[in-house]
Amino acid sequence: MAARLGDNSYGKSRVRLFRVTRDGERHDVSDLTVDVAFDGRFEAVHLEGDNAAVLPTDTMRNTVYALAKQHPVEPVESFARTLVEHFLAHSAEAEQVRIRIAKHGWARIATGGEPHPHSFVRASGERRMAYVSGDREAVRYEAGVEEVEVLKTTRSAFEGYIKDEYTTLPETKDRIFATVVSARWGYEREPEDFDAAFERVRAALLDTFAAHDSKSVQQTLFAMGAAALEAVPEVSEIRLSLPNRHHLLFDIGRFGLENKNEVFVPTTEPYGLIEATIVRDD
Amino acid sequence: MAARLGDNSYGKSRVRLFRVTRDGERHDVSDLTVDVAFDGRFEAVHLEGDNAAVLPTDTMRNTVYALAKQHPVEPVESFARTLVEHFLAHSAEAEQVRIRIAKHGWARIATGGEPHPHSFVRASGERRMAYVSGDREAVRYEAGVEEVEVLKTTRSAFEGYIKDEYTTLPETKDRIFATVVSARWGYEREPEDFDAAFERVRAALLDTFAAHDSKSVQQTLFAMGAAALEAVPEVSEIRLSLPNRHHLLFDIGRFGLENKNEVFVPTTEPYGLIEATIVRDD
Amino acid sequence: MAARLGDNSYGKSRVRLFRVTRDGERHDVSDLTVDVAFDGRFEAVHLEGDNAAVLPTDTMRNTVYALAKQHPVEPVESFARTLVEHFLAHSAEAEQVRIRIAKHGWARIATGGEPHPHSFVRASGERRMAYVSGDREAVRYEAGVEEVEVLKTTRSAFEGYIKDEYTTLPETKDRIFATVVSARWGYEREPEDFDAAFERVRAALLDTFAAHDSKSVQQTLFAMGAAALEAVPEVSEIRLSLPNRHHLLFDIGRFGLENKNEVFVPTTEPYGLIEATIVRDD
Amino acid sequence: MAARLGDNSYGKSRVRLFRVTRDGERHDVSDLTVDVAFDGRFEAVHLEGDNAAVLPTDTMRNTVYALAKQHPVEPVESFARTLVEHFLAHSAEAEQVRIRIAKHGWARIATGGEPHPHSFVRASGERRMAYVSGDREAVRYEAGVEEVEVLKTTRSAFEGYIKDEYTTLPETKDRIFATVVSARWGYEREPEDFDAAFERVRAALLDTFAAHDSKSVQQTLFAMGAAALEAVPEVSEIRLSLPNRHHLLFDIGRFGLENKNEVFVPTTEPYGLIEATIVRDD
Repeated sequence: MAARLGDNSYGKSRVRLFRVTRDGERHDVSDLTVDVAFDGRFEAVHLEGDNAAVLPTDTMRNTVYALAKQHPVEPVESFARTLVEHFLAHSAEAEQVRIRIAKHGWARIATGGEPHPHSFVRASGERRMAYVSGDREAVRYEAGVEEVEVLKTTRSAFEGYIKDEYTTLPETKDRIFATVVSARWGYEREPEDFDAAFERVRAALLDTFAAHDSKSVQQTLFAMGAAALEAVPEVSEIRLSLPNRHHLLFDIGRFGLENKNEVFVPTTEPYGLIEATIVRDD
Repeated sequence: MAARLGDNSYGKSRVRLFRVTRDGERHDVSDLTVDVAFDGRFEAVHLEGDNAAVLPTDTMRNTVYALAKQHPVEPVESFARTLVEHFLAHSAEAEQVRIRIAKHGWARIATGGEPHPHSFVRASGERRMAYVSGDREAVRYEAGVEEVEVLKTTRSAFEGYIKDEYTTLPETKDRIFATVVSARWGYEREPEDFDAAFERVRAALLDTFAAHDSKSVQQTLFAMGAAALEAVPEVSEIRLSLPNRHHLLFDIGRFGLENKNEVFVPTTEPYGLIEATIVRDD
Repeated sequence: MAARLGDNSYGKSRVRLFRVTRDGERHDVSDLTVDVAFDGRFEAVHLEGDNAAVLPTDTMRNTVYALAKQHPVEPVESFARTLVEHFLAHSAEAEQVRIRIAKHGWARIATGGEPHPHSFVRASGERRMAYVSGDREAVRYEAGVEEVEVLKTTRSAFEGYIKDEYTTLPETKDRIFATVVSARWGYEREPEDFDAAFERVRAALLDTFAAHDSKSVQQTLFAMGAAALEAVPEVSEIRLSLPNRHHLLFDIGRFGLENKNEVFVPTTEPYGLIEATIVRDD
Repeated sequence: MAARLGDNSYGKSRVRLFRVTRDGERHDVSDLTVDVAFDGRFEAVHLEGDNAAVLPTDTMRNTVYALAKQHPVEPVESFARTLVEHFLAHSAEAEQVRIRIAKHGWARIATGGEPHPHSFVRASGERRMAYVSGDREAVRYEAGVEEVEVLKTTRSAFEGYIKDEYTTLPETKDRIFATVVSARWGYEREPEDFDAAFERVRAALLDTFAAHDSKSVQQTLFAMGAAALEAVPEVSEIRLSLPNRHHLLFDIGRFGLENKNEVFVPTTEPYGLIEATIVRDD
């Protein structure tokens, strides 16, 4: 028997970077988690234990901090590109470098009605994501958002589905729709302003979720994706992952009480999981 | 040898309750996690396996949902009191009933600049807490907040401490101060409006954190606690727990670069932990 | 602009199933987490809100429990196949059904030196995985293991790598090698005994990790994968993901003490991440 | 209004220590998480920002590593005592020093039927705990165990409890009893061998859980605690916390199937929580 090396990569994950930018009394902060990965010609490393082609992951980490001093870290897509180009120049055997950045949100504390110049409170658990990969030909940009928890208390139905011997779910014209949006989209060309493009996609997703008259998670997912494509012409496709965080009506009828869609048990498992890619089709 | 029963309690933890209140098109939501605990005369249960004095924890759960239909669930302190009184009436052997409620925040999605009537996005990881306990004499109220992540990028020093053979920390006049506030306070009498009292304590904590010229976590903690006592006269004491989420300067001097308090590594472990109770002392 | 539906799937995730099998006084337990996903022709659901093709995820959940009564749940690959075949028969529009099962380990409590017939203690955080997918032509089997935490205190070196302006890592002939193995492998044909095949792959991975004289994580990864292919002829390829859980020498030299590879700080972030697929190549 | 400082403490939490001890080819490992806390006269720190009495938490961390080089780290109670004594000698204002150590388990990998001399696999999620506190008069020892997941598939009943208008739970003579044991016990005098004492308490807890004919979680809890007191005469009292991880019978009767205690849904929330202290009473 012989074994050969197939797809392979290596890198450094979860490099935590906190960057302060000072403009007099006013400070801005960037709280990022950076992942670096190299794909390439690393057979000798795996098969012979020859490390001559290896840029250590410890050096990758150092590089993130060193470049964060010398280059802007926002928009995160630009910083990711800086990293891609640096690493391609410093590893002859890396064929592709992939950078993933998660940006954690901080809002200014409001004191006396004014946003504070240097004090911050965690905004939410949401993370803005950037995925930038490059080889010696081109750089590709994707962006995304994770952990956007949303819910609506009406305008969500689910009817007309298959019934079989194991069906117990009653049809409903009015249920809670709660989900945790993960989205990832590709730019077919670089938008003028990555921050503005991100905000427009995020707003399109949330506005559509809020306004949509939902017949299923699938239908709302498609509408959200289509709205994102509509909002930013540079987006070529978007993948959405919507776990259905079921809110179950608690049966208080047993106690002679009527539950008019008022008292629910929020659950985290099991959950429905709806995923799809919506593609621009001009 | 003989063994006897000392302190004991039983109850139901993590009862997840989602309550929708409808006012025409406009809906309000309360997302709560309720814990119920009974302290009492339960020797026969433990020693003889005699369950005659046991109100099952499953019944406690059912009761939370049934009472959430029949009574307002906000302010959470009032709902907790409703539960305390119900359970004292339904368990002859419970000497004390303790209710703990965590309230999870949801904000309205803004669509077209307007807060949406029935669509919500998760506000942050913060939890408002209520701890209400009662016996056949009285009801006691405590409140709190958990997981309030805050940081300031300046106005925090740490100097003048003990040096010994294992000291390596350099003194500093300017460091990042990042923490995750947990606070719990007692009301010596019932405030007129529990929601307003909560908001005033929370604002006092954050305002003071933002504005304080910190010589140590301890000093800022005391100032925060004193401000909370100042803000709400019904608060008799407040306990604060402030983990010091160290943000370490990354050593880029090795690369010929100067780190002017710009590039940091945020860490989660180990962490300093500063805890104290601040007591009203009129 | 027009948008079209690309890749899409839906299903139920994290269906928790605990199955007891009784043989007189002796009981066996299967503690499983089951995920179900359908890929198929679901355009009408997404675009028109027509649910006629949808078998609800609630029904998927019910089906897992109903079939767990009627069929053996171990080996988990067989139970997964049972689910695949059932769901293909109950959803005309599903082109492919994918089942993922995680098996959580329980060991018998030893009392008086004997394994107890019906009392169990959690074995470890490891999860045995099965991934079975099928369409109307064929069923494909993959298996895996997750969260296998291992470490060795010697026989791991890292030398001869690229040095650049951001290199600070010293070369070493002797370091701690700690990782959390995730592996996933495909069977090109069904092995006679899925349980035995799993145990042989797992043993090959651990034995090789323990015995290998490591020049890099990459080299050990390849050796582990090759050993797995050697151990079970039905395995066609195996993907390994090895996070490098760095154990850093703590610098006690500052205190006049010598650290002879004795005192370490285990870290969880950042971590090196080495991933590769090893392919049979006869 | 005036505010004064009440109870207060400070220290370093989650100091991760990995200690290798070499005996030729055979290595032993100790994987510990250490928490240090000082209680004392720290009014000037809090009120005046005067740090003269503060031994920095960074120095506490350094000290843990430095002392781990110079002293045995096992039994963990002895290492904790070493730390207590060191810190009392290095902080004039600390009135009490408290050390908490969690020990994470590693087992030797078995290769060719033999335990490997230097390669290890994570044993389970269990943690052995030590809590040692001291002032200038005395040192006090407590020990414990956390995250011991156990279950039994029979010999657990629950009957004869209070019924009220919100009762729906059916009485049962035979249910699954699953819990995650947390225990903490005090030694009224130092046992000869802390490791042996720990093992005897742990074995008493598990043996009793396995063998007990349970009429309630409370009754089994008491029996477990009494057995622990019986097993180790130096133990003066033990506190047990037993969450009831309910395994719900899945209702397959709706599908014409009979569930003879075979098919369950394991749940994690809500959970019953039973806590008590069992005290030696000679």
